[in-house]
Amino acid sequence: MLVEIVTIGNEVLSGRTLDTNFAFLARALEAASVQVGWHSTAADAVERIGEAIRLALDRADAVVVTGGLGPTPDDMTRKAVATVLGRPLQLDEAVRERILTRIRRAGRKILPAIESQALLPLGAEAWPNELGTAPGILIVHKGKPVVLLPGVPAEMEALATTCLVPYLRERSGRRVETFTLRTAGVYESWLHEKIGQAPTAWPGATLAYLPSYFGVDLRVTVSGTDEARVLDSTGRAYDELKALIGPWIYAEGEQTMEEVLGELLLERKWRLATAESCTGGLLAKRITDVPGASRYFERGFVTYSDAAKVSQLGVREADLVAHGAVSEPVAMQMADGARERSGAELGIAITGIAGPGGGTAAKPVGTVHIAVASPEGAAARKFHFLGTRRTVRERSAQTALDLARRRLAGLPLDPKLD
Amino acid sequence: MLVEIVTIGNEVLSGRTLDTNFAFLARALEAASVQVGWHSTAADAVERIGEAIRLALDRADAVVVTGGLGPTPDDMTRKAVATVLGRPLQLDEAVRERILTRIRRAGRKILPAIESQALLPLGAEAWPNELGTAPGILIVHKGKPVVLLPGVPAEMEALATTCLVPYLRERSGRRVETFTLRTAGVYESWLHEKIGQAPTAWPGATLAYLPSYFGVDLRVTVSGTDEARVLDSTGRAYDELKALIGPWIYAEGEQTMEEVLGELLLERKWRLATAESCTGGLLAKRITDVPGASRYFERGFVTYSDAAKVSQLGVREADLVAHGAVSEPVAMQMADGARERSGAELGIAITGIAGPGGGTAAKPVGTVHIAVASPEGAAARKFHFLGTRRTVRERSAQTALDLARRRLAGLPLDPKLD
Repeated sequence: MLVEIVTIGNEVLSGRTLDTNFAFLARALEAASVQVGWHSTAADAVERIGEAIRLALDRADAVVVTGGLGPTPDDMTRKAVATVLGRPLQLDEAVRERILTRIRRAGRKILPAIESQALLPLGAEAWPNELGTAPGILIVHKGKPVVLLPGVPAEMEALATTCLVPYLRERSGRRVETFTLRTAGVYESWLHEKIGQAPTAWPGATLAYLPSYFGVDLRVTVSGTDEARVLDSTGRAYDELKALIGPWIYAEGEQTMEEVLGELLLERKWRLATAESCTGGLLAKRITDVPGASRYFERGFVTYSDAAKVSQLGVREADLVAHGAVSEPVAMQMADGARERSGAELGIAITGIAGPGGGTAAKPVGTVHIAVASPEGAAARKFHFLGTRRTVRERSAQTALDLARRRLAGLPLDPKLD
Repeated sequence: MLVEIVTIGNEVLSGRTLDTNFAFLARALEAASVQVGWHSTAADAVERIGEAIRLALDRADAVVVTGGLGPTPDDMTRKAVATVLGRPLQLDEAVRERILTRIRRAGRKILPAIESQALLPLGAEAWPNELGTAPGILIVHKGKPVVLLPGVPAEMEALATTCLVPYLRERSGRRVETFTLRTAGVYESWLHEKIGQAPTAWPGATLAYLPSYFGVDLRVTVSGTDEARVLDSTGRAYDELKALIGPWIYAEGEQTMEEVLGELLLERKWRLATAESCTGGLLAKRITDVPGASRYFERGFVTYSDAAKVSQLGVREADLVAHGAVSEPVAMQMADGARERSGAELGIAITGIAGPGGGTAAKPVGTVHIAVASPEGAAARKFHFLGTRRTVRERSAQTALDLARRRLAGLPLDPKLD
């Protein structure tokens, strides 16, 4: 099944908003064994949207549209679809009720325009949007599905995952298995060398290397018509990858490093405190992204100034002077201080130079010291992260979480590359 | 002049590579008074590329293609263009010489495939690529320019800036002006009601509402052939929007709330400390996203536990018991405590229920108290944010930054909705 994705919106077409929605959808559809054959972007104009959808219906087996479902006059997807498919818009009472209830519950004023979101093309089905007012819309037109999703990323992503992917997977008739192994602390090229041609022995399988700030995810997708063969090939791929690169895998699927760390802390009944300089709160933010983090996260110290490092964490002024704030002794004292001052069992500390300014020949931008302190003692590691301020900060936080995970799980802090 | 941009590449079409090239091109072309009317993405296949270019030539005044000019067999743009325009590929000796010189100078081995990059469609002109081997290619076909650029971002960007933009600017004869006003603390539907039909009085202008976690951006684009009229219409749009919704505008263009706050702090020579509960470090992270934040950010307290609120910020236990951690008195004491314990002039505090758990009938998920403390005293506001844990946290941080901005700028904390 070849799908066309159509992105609607002047803000995307003008280049001001990166089209992350398209990238999300294309990757999500892979899990439904659906390939993206075409992608187009249309302006917020009824004619342009209609033209894009007509063309997509001509060449693709299904059309997924994102954007232009809001309540304002520049949201024209509904009208364009109604026109191009010859399916007049009709008020859906159930959808209208859901929208009004949602707005009332939020204590917001109900403006007449909002009701336009309850207008659906004739014969359409609404997919409830748990995060906003515009529902997803499914129309099967001359046997081809046309799906309209909102453009707000969180809403689009939720609807794609819970409604669109299951729907298309059922239609495709193919069996698709997919799994993801998440690695950290190792380069894509090393993984590639280690794994080599192994995937050629997994029938129907493709292996994708997906690098990001957080490490390299390995996604295996196995597709076929014979269920038993697909499952067998999937199992083989999983076992072989675990054997080849096991020490670098920190999670499977969508699980994040902070979730893994949280589970380990709960298991051990340990509490955690963080001490951050260059990441400026990002590490604590990542940890508290996880619902229920209050069960193990005690507190965070964002000691951006030297004075804060001294007064909040007990870092020795002499060491700040002798070694500088970006140094191993300071990182160790920050981690120890976070533990001791909070009463938590585990302390994690980051101090580094995120840039763009502040680098020197001896300590260039990207120099970061990370320390972990636990009842067994403290340990620190030094890193050189490449990239922008954002990249350095993201990599620092991820690496700090990984070191804490290794310490908690009783794994070596530095697995050997062979 | 309406241009179509065509991106070539399976990597982009699969969603694995974000199409930053397109966004760059679209924005660069604005500077040439050229608007992007369409954007499409084609797979690495001669037929698909040909189909996309044929369609683009039908509807657009000019076509810009990026990607597929490399020397490997999956680079098929040259061949597709030659086929669809009926202009056979011919070896361009000057281009070939440039490529070979470049490779020799780099001490690389000359592989036969590299010479394919010296093949140009009949009648084409080559734009020299200073950063790589594939030249930019210009073909004027039946009066319409077709421009091929490499897909390597740095090479594409250099060619776009030095060759494409000047070339199209000269051809277009149109003038385009654009500006963005960023609002926070107000719903899109309210803005829309307030602005109403005003844009109809701005000749050649379109107004886009761009909602996100951070508020609603309003972008105006004015286009026309008469420069004076375009400038006049742009000025009118700007003045009228400022008059209609001025109190909600926190920035213009790409500037973020944390940047605006940072400038105000530098102006006043004030330092800032944060105290966070439910946002768990996000507020401090946002503030330190700005390079140079160390000039005004003193420290952050991520007091996730009640014990931390008491010991780190001096929140009174009696108030935690009587009112709960999510309450106005606790928010005020957190903000005051952050100021006093750090010596900073400004304290910002957030305490709330981000969810998904922890809500009650009296304090549902999304209940957030935000306080700002300065030498003038402390003030707190209560909010109900809708959405996921992430949304509640993002909105809380943005609103806290906005309240601090208003306090620093001497603006009322609650502008009146009328």
